Amino acid sequence: MVLLNIDDRRKLPLFKQVYEQMKDLIDKDILKPGDRLPSTRSLAENLGVHRSTVYKAYEELWAFGYLESRPGSYTVVRKKPTLATFAEKSDRSLLDWETASSKPARTLYQFYQSIESGHDRSPTRKIIDMASLDLDARLFPVDDFRKSMNRIIIEKGPDLLKYGPHEGYRPLREFIAHRLQNHGISTSWEEILITNGAQNGFDLILKLMAEAGSRVIVESPTYSLAIPLLYFYQADIVGVPMATYGIDLECLERELKKKRPAFVYTIPNFQNPTGITTCQSHREELLSLCERFKVPLVEDAFEEEMKYFGKVPLPIKSMDRSQIVVYLGTFSKVLFPGIRIGWIAANRECIRRLSALKRFSDLSTSTPVQAALSDFCWKGSYDIHVKRMHRIYRKRMQCAVESLKTHVTHENVTWTDPTGGYLIWLTLVNVDQADHILEEIFLANDVRILTGRVFFPEETARKYIRLSISTLNEEEIAEGMRRLGRSIEQIYGE
Amino acid sequence: MVLLNIDDRRKLPLFKQVYEQMKDLIDKDILKPGDRLPSTRSLAENLGVHRSTVYKAYEELWAFGYLESRPGSYTVVRKKPTLATFAEKSDRSLLDWETASSKPARTLYQFYQSIESGHDRSPTRKIIDMASLDLDARLFPVDDFRKSMNRIIIEKGPDLLKYGPHEGYRPLREFIAHRLQNHGISTSWEEILITNGAQNGFDLILKLMAEAGSRVIVESPTYSLAIPLLYFYQADIVGVPMATYGIDLECLERELKKKRPAFVYTIPNFQNPTGITTCQSHREELLSLCERFKVPLVEDAFEEEMKYFGKVPLPIKSMDRSQIVVYLGTFSKVLFPGIRIGWIAANRECIRRLSALKRFSDLSTSTPVQAALSDFCWKGSYDIHVKRMHRIYRKRMQCAVESLKTHVTHENVTWTDPTGGYLIWLTLVNVDQADHILEEIFLANDVRILTGRVFFPEETARKYIRLSISTLNEEEIAEGMRRLGRSIEQIYGE
Repeated sequence: MVLLNIDDRRKLPLFKQVYEQMKDLIDKDILKPGDRLPSTRSLAENLGVHRSTVYKAYEELWAFGYLESRPGSYTVVRKKPTLATFAEKSDRSLLDWETASSKPARTLYQFYQSIESGHDRSPTRKIIDMASLDLDARLFPVDDFRKSMNRIIIEKGPDLLKYGPHEGYRPLREFIAHRLQNHGISTSWEEILITNGAQNGFDLILKLMAEAGSRVIVESPTYSLAIPLLYFYQADIVGVPMATYGIDLECLERELKKKRPAFVYTIPNFQNPTGITTCQSHREELLSLCERFKVPLVEDAFEEEMKYFGKVPLPIKSMDRSQIVVYLGTFSKVLFPGIRIGWIAANRECIRRLSALKRFSDLSTSTPVQAALSDFCWKGSYDIHVKRMHRIYRKRMQCAVESLKTHVTHENVTWTDPTGGYLIWLTLVNVDQADHILEEIFLANDVRILTGRVFFPEETARKYIRLSISTLNEEEIAEGMRRLGRSIEQIYGE
Repeated sequence: MVLLNIDDRRKLPLFKQVYEQMKDLIDKDILKPGDRLPSTRSLAENLGVHRSTVYKAYEELWAFGYLESRPGSYTVVRKKPTLATFAEKSDRSLLDWETASSKPARTLYQFYQSIESGHDRSPTRKIIDMASLDLDARLFPVDDFRKSMNRIIIEKGPDLLKYGPHEGYRPLREFIAHRLQNHGISTSWEEILITNGAQNGFDLILKLMAEAGSRVIVESPTYSLAIPLLYFYQADIVGVPMATYGIDLECLERELKKKRPAFVYTIPNFQNPTGITTCQSHREELLSLCERFKVPLVEDAFEEEMKYFGKVPLPIKSMDRSQIVVYLGTFSKVLFPGIRIGWIAANRECIRRLSALKRFSDLSTSTPVQAALSDFCWKGSYDIHVKRMHRIYRKRMQCAVESLKTHVTHENVTWTDPTGGYLIWLTLVNVDQADHILEEIFLANDVRILTGRVFFPEETARKYIRLSISTLNEEEIAEGMRRLGRSIEQIYGE
């Protein structure tokens, strides 16, 4: 017979005392799996407590897996559950996660592995990174942002830490609507949806409009991370070539006539990757084509704010009287990428539907970050920062173009002068090497670039290099271009 | 002949002077659409500047849409683009966004509208909200979080504001791995993916494993926002009934035998909506069933931390030696919902694949928020907060159960005592009214509840009420239960 020590002067309830002591006996293997426990009635009599006290203790022992069957019936000690400790748990899963993945997830993962493997992240070498489209962290207005965050949490803390509206924090939506007027866009806060960066915006747009077999027209080449996501949604990707002045409008019209696409995706400013900025008439024609065929036009304005040379027409959205343009904006390419704040500006009905998708995907974007950003913007710090970025990148891009002219003189290499943004796109003719070989040659010269391969929705034999100056100062840019020049000489075997 | 005033002593470059003055003449309608401009040669001679200066000015005028054709050819003033001003832009879109939506997006939107319409958000009345699963903002440790945010931005600002790793901020992943040991789970930071709350985690899990026609087994009833998302991914939802002790294991086994599902979705603690907590042996059997059929088991641990009565076995993940459990966690149900931080703990290979999906969906979760939370947690504030929540909600739930016993005495209403969390699930028999009528009766008594309808993957005629105490203090709970009692009397016509 088990001996328990029950004391009603202790603070612990009687049933807990029974529970704890029984548990201890089992844990210490004094009571062993298969051992029969006294009935609740006999143990209660034995301890001089009410039967319900023992019942309650047994009930809890059972819930935690110490007893085989619920109290009332014949009760025995149970085999202990085996925890998956570090030593016990298998290194490999019972499941093959490739087989457990859906077809679209498998496709996406293949693409992910192919781009991941291309990166040499060795931190020991002094590589100049002309591949990254991150920003130069040395220019971040960190302290102003910190103060905004501090102020807004003091002012509105509890409200910001509750569930927030899935459309986004209203003062930030208001700021964006207000700011878009600088770019000729008349819109109200109700036509703005806050997203976790533009990538989340693009995902939501695809969730809204793309399904298996949808045709989606993109520029060829286009933003590299758009392509795998289009594959994920099983869209039928139609690449329309980029001419020197932007997407080829005749070719686009032919494609629009064939079969109505879900939407057309365009990047009119400093296009990623070509750096091409379209002119006013091209924008008007593109919009009117989409209006004629009643097709939504997704305008990716990822670097709208980086018009530091001033030579850029207003966004297509500014002329969108018929409300068919879905405008994708972001703070990532001018302020902070790490906060993950972007937005979609579109017709109210479209925003309502995107908000529903946002709600079911992640409820909302983080509210305190939105609120700090809003405070930062409304206090004027955003404006000051953008002007500073303009001054700095105007010089940096001028330096880039000059260094490029100095160090890359080979007749087989051409580029167009950029009108803003961070990108320069080089065309290389008469190159025999494959893209990954080219990338290795540049890396061997301690400069990282991206070749064209990831930007084309279809296979292409032509050779391109995308240069980004977004994280580099003038000195680094000049040195990067020197290394670039050296690499190109090696490529052409001089 | 146009008269321009060019002055080479001004700071503005000559071409800019030509550009600005031409632009002005066009803006003021002195030069009208169709008017022919002088050739670059003749204007250059006239102004005494180099021809390339005029060429550059015309080029810029053209880019901004002031001229019909590019300089060089015959140049005329262009019709001005019409901006979509507030007055000019159509109130209605040219597009029907219902037609522009994909089939899954349409289905989701219908569901969204049905749940949105059910909410009376009138702020003037003093309604006690027993529907919301938000948290009680009066208990938020706002100041500690603010200090963590402030400290971490000072320490690591620039690094946190750059693009962060898509798997999440490493110290936070480390804290979660460390904390999970409290719940018997042995895992490393590499097995943790940070998400924008558990909803984003569930979306990623569906992206990984569900596609059109996939069978997904869920508890019936289950978490309401899981159902529309499953519809969105066109999964074939199989609801297995909840018995009083958890998902019906015999029924589950029958379903597993029929056809292999993509995964089984379970909420073992304080199940949403029923409040049911499964016992140890149920957990073991559920896991071993999934192992036998080689099916991933998605364990939603949304209220893992709210075991304030102590009577809860360890999570299924703690026994996951064969690495098939995908564990979904969140800070939303114990700390702050508004920061949107949750996580997935799973086998490394599974995490890698989910990370790829995360990357293409939104690159990463906001880094400064992750870092502030990590600081908050590592400094010990999380631990202190959880203990405080336990003390408070133990009392609040006791109060809820007592008030319920006092005010709801009708023989047709039953419920199970909750073992933790925020939810109580009432079963009402012999009710004739439809769910939305019931909701109106409660609202008329100034208490908001949720009826069963949104929680079932299939139609159900049975009547349930889900009560949540997550935002209420004891006084509010007691008053809420009084109003609930009054409403129930009205329903049964007493």
